[in-house]
Amino acid sequence: MLLCDIGNTSYHFLQNDTDFKESTLTFDPRTIKERVYYISVNKKLQDLLQSLENWIDISDFIEREKYYNTMGIDRIMAVEAVDNGIIIDAGSAVTVDVVKSGNFAGGFIYPGIKAMQKSYTDISQALDYSFNFELNLDKMPKNSQDAISYGYLKTLYCEVMSHKMPVILTGGDARVFAKIFTDTTVDERLIFKGMKKILQRADIC
Amino acid sequence: MLLCDIGNTSYHFLQNDTDFKESTLTFDPRTIKERVYYISVNKKLQDLLQSLENWIDISDFIEREKYYNTMGIDRIMAVEAVDNGIIIDAGSAVTVDVVKSGNFAGGFIYPGIKAMQKSYTDISQALDYSFNFELNLDKMPKNSQDAISYGYLKTLYCEVMSHKMPVILTGGDARVFAKIFTDTTVDERLIFKGMKKILQRADIC
Repeated sequence: MLLCDIGNTSYHFLQNDTDFKESTLTFDPRTIKERVYYISVNKKLQDLLQSLENWIDISDFIEREKYYNTMGIDRIMAVEAVDNGIIIDAGSAVTVDVVKSGNFAGGFIYPGIKAMQKSYTDISQALDYSFNFELNLDKMPKNSQDAISYGYLKTLYCEVMSHKMPVILTGGDARVFAKIFTDTTVDERLIFKGMKKILQRADIC
Repeated sequence: MLLCDIGNTSYHFLQNDTDFKESTLTFDPRTIKERVYYISVNKKLQDLLQSLENWIDISDFIEREKYYNTMGIDRIMAVEAVDNGIIIDAGSAVTVDVVKSGNFAGGFIYPGIKAMQKSYTDISQALDYSFNFELNLDKMPKNSQDAISYGYLKTLYCEVMSHKMPVILTGGDARVFAKIFTDTTVDERLIFKGMKKILQRADIC
């Protein structure tokens, strides 16, 4: 079975136990002849994908009333994969979602690394540093690089940990954030787990 | 006595009990003939101001070793004004500084409202909302506007309150942030207080 999670920059495929990525700029989905179960947040590809018979959008199998209208399908799939916990999906945005007894209990959106870095640089060129993920979160900073790193990371850490729930990290920057969120599970295939669960529930596989 | 706090967009003056602002784009500091005690983070105005005999840069009277090298002079002046507390200076950046027994104990930098809003919009046009400062911080959001508002505000709130110190709000957006930080002191003239303290200590007034 071929699964695909489509974002703004890449197609992320899972076939059996192997996952691979293709760029949305260069990959042509028509080159795949077998059946693909997919989710997509990419508006530009919507018409093309819907025109292909072997590409099945599994967002149709979701109980939509459990979520809010404008919630991204990738967040929904991650939530579907978890019974109890707080999910951090670290990509171009960092989405944080709470799941209690299998039910979505709300969530928030924080800028991803690149967007936040740009935000500091836009304020002042004097803040043009990369984030220090080796930062000591227990110590108030006394230099500029740590001052923005703490501003980005400790604030997020503080809020997430206040829920006192198991933390699950996923998304392209999961391993980077794991340096800060040390006592957590990294599961880069969390969204695929959610997709499989939906397919099983719909008796498709 | 005339005091002036110069940022990137405005000259902020205090004369006796009246404060007023002038734009850095249109105001000519040569038009003032009396003595002005000032601080400035505006690099573009540096040469002009230093060439004017009646404009006295009071950053020279600071004990610089109490602070780190690249720390903004406006943050230093705010810290000088406080004995014990955590200062939030909400402007184009939000700086957060801890003062214990009159000593700077470290601080961090967070994006201001405009920069953070742009950061969300850069990620996706679907996140193009203004922040909801009436947000209930005790409830995980279930709509997009609250999801970004919570991401911006609750994370900051959580970190600041974890210090369990009196909170002092200053800067152009102090009153907006006071909607979130409810049990705090708003002091829009905090930087001027620091400047006066420095002048008194240097026996200038």
